[in-house]
Amino acid sequence: MSKNSSKDLNLEPAAGNGLLHRRVFLSRSAAMVGGLGLLSAQASKADTLEVPPWMLEPGAHMSGYGQRSEYEQGTQRIIGSPPGLIGNGVSFTPLEKLHGTITPNSLHFERHHSGVPNINPDEHRLLIHGLVSRPLVFTIDDLMRYPTVTKTQFLECSGNSRGNLVEPTPQQAPLGVLHGLVSCSEWTGVPLSVLMEEAGVNPEGRWVLAEGADAAAMSRSIPLEKIMDDAIIALYQNGERLRPGNGYPMRLFLPGWEGNMSVKWLRRLKVNTGPTMTRDETSHYTDVLANGRSRIFTFPMGVKSIITSPSVGLNLNSGPGVYEIIGLAWSGAGRITRVEVSADNGNTWAEAAISGPALDKSLTRFRMAWNWNGGSAILKSRAFDETGAEQPLREELISEYGQPRNYHNNAIQAWSIEAANGEVTNVYA
Amino acid sequence: MSKNSSKDLNLEPAAGNGLLHRRVFLSRSAAMVGGLGLLSAQASKADTLEVPPWMLEPGAHMSGYGQRSEYEQGTQRIIGSPPGLIGNGVSFTPLEKLHGTITPNSLHFERHHSGVPNINPDEHRLLIHGLVSRPLVFTIDDLMRYPTVTKTQFLECSGNSRGNLVEPTPQQAPLGVLHGLVSCSEWTGVPLSVLMEEAGVNPEGRWVLAEGADAAAMSRSIPLEKIMDDAIIALYQNGERLRPGNGYPMRLFLPGWEGNMSVKWLRRLKVNTGPTMTRDETSHYTDVLANGRSRIFTFPMGVKSIITSPSVGLNLNSGPGVYEIIGLAWSGAGRITRVEVSADNGNTWAEAAISGPALDKSLTRFRMAWNWNGGSAILKSRAFDETGAEQPLREELISEYGQPRNYHNNAIQAWSIEAANGEVTNVYA
Repeated sequence: MSKNSSKDLNLEPAAGNGLLHRRVFLSRSAAMVGGLGLLSAQASKADTLEVPPWMLEPGAHMSGYGQRSEYEQGTQRIIGSPPGLIGNGVSFTPLEKLHGTITPNSLHFERHHSGVPNINPDEHRLLIHGLVSRPLVFTIDDLMRYPTVTKTQFLECSGNSRGNLVEPTPQQAPLGVLHGLVSCSEWTGVPLSVLMEEAGVNPEGRWVLAEGADAAAMSRSIPLEKIMDDAIIALYQNGERLRPGNGYPMRLFLPGWEGNMSVKWLRRLKVNTGPTMTRDETSHYTDVLANGRSRIFTFPMGVKSIITSPSVGLNLNSGPGVYEIIGLAWSGAGRITRVEVSADNGNTWAEAAISGPALDKSLTRFRMAWNWNGGSAILKSRAFDETGAEQPLREELISEYGQPRNYHNNAIQAWSIEAANGEVTNVYA
Repeated sequence: MSKNSSKDLNLEPAAGNGLLHRRVFLSRSAAMVGGLGLLSAQASKADTLEVPPWMLEPGAHMSGYGQRSEYEQGTQRIIGSPPGLIGNGVSFTPLEKLHGTITPNSLHFERHHSGVPNINPDEHRLLIHGLVSRPLVFTIDDLMRYPTVTKTQFLECSGNSRGNLVEPTPQQAPLGVLHGLVSCSEWTGVPLSVLMEEAGVNPEGRWVLAEGADAAAMSRSIPLEKIMDDAIIALYQNGERLRPGNGYPMRLFLPGWEGNMSVKWLRRLKVNTGPTMTRDETSHYTDVLANGRSRIFTFPMGVKSIITSPSVGLNLNSGPGVYEIIGLAWSGAGRITRVEVSADNGNTWAEAAISGPALDKSLTRFRMAWNWNGGSAILKSRAFDETGAEQPLREELISEYGQPRNYHNNAIQAWSIEAANGEVTNVYA
């Protein structure tokens, strides 16, 4: 394990402008070589440490429910809410400050239409009615007796990344503000198919109205097929009971579909012959096309990726050298099969390393080693899913609609790296 | 989707005393059938709901860092600490109140030897020294430049489940108190092999002393082979930075090995020719054998499973009928390949359904449908891992040592179900 000579360094280029082959991460020996020398400027040579003050006296006692460090209080969701409309708006997951794929419950993005209700779980009920043989009401305790499933899956607001479509010039903001209406949790709940079977759906039943117990009575129509396929009544998020901001004591969860359909504080499921055309699916979450018609019921979230570092505010501060480009990829249609990265504005692409198992409809972390030469560069990533779908360019997405749309922006994000100082800006490229 | 007749119910027995085949969970149609009728006593027949008070006025506004419901404050870690020794002891994950496999950071078990230090990350340093070519000191910012890995893995205290070995009569306590020194997180950090390569380990280096920055200077000796294999410097837990109780701003993480070796608040790694024989590996975490000798350096955690529900306090309250038995399994040697459940004190066993991907050295959730006839029963689970290892019986574990041991209890847990009232007790069976 002595120092390898530089000729052993596995710096095989994989695409233009300094992208290195993903073997730098995939094989252990290559990872060691990758770290060797290239990053050594990061450590100081020293062989002693002073004893810090916190080793000189006993620390704090155990706690029942832990809190984070006082030094990490700056990691917060940024709140976007129209003036005067308390409780209406969004809070963005600060993706630029997180790593891995799980989003802590305290930092999961939220979108509320009339604030967060404080629901007493003992008084909450779920009603299944409409075109069913046996209308049923469930308490929480009732639901806790049913079989459960556990899956790690993303949730994304259909309005995520909207600014990049509708703003005439690219917004320079932290990653969370640009793309932070996506989060990922381990969800545990009761398969809704079991409850619907028990209620007995009549043959003419085709759609289900889902209604929340917030003051907006947020309501969406959902095809029965999705309800019977993989919908769950979510009771636990990342191990513990749901938080109020995410639908406590229960929410609908529709894997891969636009977030607002996973109705929070779920109180009612009504089986109908068709969609109800609620306010929340007509005045919102519908895109007007260039010809004046509207496109409605755009349910699944498209295949998408973003480079999370570097990104706006996460500049290349250490001068030319090897950097780890990291990012997130996901698809409402299934597993991510490949992510590619370009450092020359899409002229050439190299395949990124994917960390971990790339679960179905889950955030997936990718990594790419980049030997930055100190010059200007445009970084992009593009994801592919198991259906063969490929993440589109921004101009492709806009031309499809004839004009910018408000929802379902899964376009490729381009970051411009400024020569010499390594500053990162959001660009349309 | 009309109601199936009872002859369609897929209640094929899989083992004695009412255990049903795992297909009840594995196939969707079977799951629907499983839910049908058998559990219908759980729901009330009704087709209207009253409007609850929280729908009549707007709810709370968005928040930067969310909190759980006021109705869930009872979910707390139970603290075990010797009288007068503030900061020394354990806090148990309340496994009986959680579901899925991820443990929320606020509820991860903790074991402290001299309390939780409040470390200023800007002043924290990691020193790598001893038998190396280039002693190095790293700041947090230095480490943030290195390549990272992300893995979902359990952490278990070597003293977990100790009571069941050393208490002459079985302790009747919530599951968390009996077995709650195990938790599971998505950990993200820097492969330690990269840093050790950079320091350049001398040929005679064989062991590494790891020291924490707490007032106990908690210290363990680790074989260099493990350090170079899969050890990481963990910086993120479940997406966000580590909490102080879990080693903020950095901890060592040794996948699959006893928890105390994953030294928290890591400040120093010294390469030596052999183990240091620190207080924390001689007076603690060593088992005295019947012949007076000690067994030391018992690193990997054995293959293990527990039924989490039913368990003490989670009784079968609804009378005879179908229940979902759920549990957790894990192994320090790799993936869980099979979990079996018995309802007749180990006379017959049936294979449980495993939820999700059964990741390497991760908590794995299993499920089993049980048609309880209302009679008395002894429930057990036993896990198998990819090395072929099988979870032992309590008496096998004790006979191996000649006497009860304090550490590494991975014995099968037996729960007794009382006839008629369904009360659950911890038994040695």
